[in-house]
Amino acid sequence: MSITHAYAAMSATTPLVPWTLQRRAPGAQDVDIDILYCGVCHSDLHAARSDWGGTVYPIVPGHEIVGRVTAVGAGVTRFSPGQLVGVGCLVDSCRQCGSCADGLEQYCERGSTGTYNAPDKHGGITYGGYSTRIVVDEAFVLRIPETLDPAAAAPLLCAGITTYSPLRHWQVKPGMAVGVVGLGGLGHMAIKLAKAMGARVALFTTSPAKAEDARRLGADEVIVSTDRAQMKAQSRRLDLVLDTIAASHDLDVYLRTLKRDGTLVLIGVPDRPHAAPNVANLVFQRRSIAGSLIGGIKETQEMLDFCGAHGIVSDIEAIPMGRINDAYERMLRSDVRYRFVIDMSSLKNVNAG
Amino acid sequence: MSITHAYAAMSATTPLVPWTLQRRAPGAQDVDIDILYCGVCHSDLHAARSDWGGTVYPIVPGHEIVGRVTAVGAGVTRFSPGQLVGVGCLVDSCRQCGSCADGLEQYCERGSTGTYNAPDKHGGITYGGYSTRIVVDEAFVLRIPETLDPAAAAPLLCAGITTYSPLRHWQVKPGMAVGVVGLGGLGHMAIKLAKAMGARVALFTTSPAKAEDARRLGADEVIVSTDRAQMKAQSRRLDLVLDTIAASHDLDVYLRTLKRDGTLVLIGVPDRPHAAPNVANLVFQRRSIAGSLIGGIKETQEMLDFCGAHGIVSDIEAIPMGRINDAYERMLRSDVRYRFVIDMSSLKNVNAG
Repeated sequence: MSITHAYAAMSATTPLVPWTLQRRAPGAQDVDIDILYCGVCHSDLHAARSDWGGTVYPIVPGHEIVGRVTAVGAGVTRFSPGQLVGVGCLVDSCRQCGSCADGLEQYCERGSTGTYNAPDKHGGITYGGYSTRIVVDEAFVLRIPETLDPAAAAPLLCAGITTYSPLRHWQVKPGMAVGVVGLGGLGHMAIKLAKAMGARVALFTTSPAKAEDARRLGADEVIVSTDRAQMKAQSRRLDLVLDTIAASHDLDVYLRTLKRDGTLVLIGVPDRPHAAPNVANLVFQRRSIAGSLIGGIKETQEMLDFCGAHGIVSDIEAIPMGRINDAYERMLRSDVRYRFVIDMSSLKNVNAG
Repeated sequence: MSITHAYAAMSATTPLVPWTLQRRAPGAQDVDIDILYCGVCHSDLHAARSDWGGTVYPIVPGHEIVGRVTAVGAGVTRFSPGQLVGVGCLVDSCRQCGSCADGLEQYCERGSTGTYNAPDKHGGITYGGYSTRIVVDEAFVLRIPETLDPAAAAPLLCAGITTYSPLRHWQVKPGMAVGVVGLGGLGHMAIKLAKAMGARVALFTTSPAKAEDARRLGADEVIVSTDRAQMKAQSRRLDLVLDTIAASHDLDVYLRTLKRDGTLVLIGVPDRPHAAPNVANLVFQRRSIAGSLIGGIKETQEMLDFCGAHGIVSDIEAIPMGRINDAYERMLRSDVRYRFVIDMSSLKNVNAG
């Protein structure tokens, strides 16, 4: 055991504050990681404030972790000290069920172990990446291509894989047309990834002001979703739509943009249900509405390698650890292009002082 | 042209009555069919009463037609007089769009031509199978296996293909578990077809009294959908659920019965939307909700051949044409096991008198 500096929420209604925690001593299969950067995901805020219930306090959020290996257990075969690595939303799973056998640990039938706020098999609760150090089983550690900016690569571990996985599962390839609903942390990654896979990309947004930035990110078209004429012009044009909006909204306007056999994939879970879709929009063109959750470890590595090959990272705003509460407020106002990333040297220096 | 006897609704609020209509003279590509039997579909009733709007009166319903060829046009190559044939929900489509090229005329991008109440390219409105004779382009005529009872084969043309097509599209095969929601005209065909494809079949019903009959039809399990313990025991057990219920209902209880990557296929269109599903039930197991509409001509022939090979027909109650209005009322009370089929000799004899 050793002391690790962190930021934690002590209750649902108080800001995050400096805290210390103890990481376990690395076991035979463990990788000991010095955290360099941690992305700030909307889920962090929801969990810190117990918006979904079930939060155990203190909670240390953070599941977009990039760092360097400082030590490895005797049984570790794939990592060595000095290597640039990442940890995403999961740090363990049952490793025995059908989903785990298929490399889809996020759908583990016994429940995977989240990187924070989850009971783990060591008898404690997991603490996330808003901290200087983490110890993780090598089976859940990812290689980060050294060619990528490590700060900007951090959001790939959640925002990246959450968009990459459905694009791959629904087999996006050159010649296909992909719609992306919403230009935020998820949406801006979806544009970059779908474009790199060779698709024609249409961004749907309620903010005409975002058009220029969407085109810079790779969108071929920007559609203002509140403009009925623009939406009508998109009827039956798209093969796949990734809907990144977690707030309750009308799904029918996006269903109608899909061709026959097209799929609307929801990757955000709203706190109130979306308006009930019109079944006719499904039946008369054999369309589907599906959901997708992050991605498995194998696919996350594939995504990181894909991003390495294509030079894809997130557009980020780096912040020191002490700015996290302000960052949460700005995130609630969508005032970030497009992901905050905590520079963990700020926490190390402060606490070393 | 020649006089054809029929039954028609003259308005949304009056019963069907005897009527006569003129069929076109068979053209070079046409097949002239003496109608023997016509199944009675729920859609017939909805269209006769303009429940969905847009009905043009008089309307002659009927799109589960079985008859014998009496004559063929000079260009007809696949049919000859005396042959047992069928006509389903479609009598034409654009034949040029991507869906038509894929053999999926039901999703024709320019709109396919329904067997009744649809404007056709001959300048009139189509009249359906509640009549003694029909003239149809050979491209939309099906071969009925002579080994099947022709009366009981009639419902295959709509109820059969509406359930067969999604079972095939979602690749049902031995070892898979399929759920069927509702035991009516569609549900009883879904059980027979899924069972013949080698699946384990679970029927969901609100009526415990239907259990015995469901097992006779091939269901391996019968679950009373209002029984929470029975429903809970089905969690994540099924690969595919065919939901045949057109009335608005809760979809979440069926989503939860699906394994990861499972699909809930809606084949009924409710007049009011279903309750909005919980997005978490989609996201956390990558499940889908889809819709499916009848089937294309090529697949309908495949279904008929499959039914011929497996000896599958509908469970029917034959009625004379004059009983159609009573049959509609009984259908509204679900008082039929499981499909009314009109014996068209009743109409021929009456009108010949």
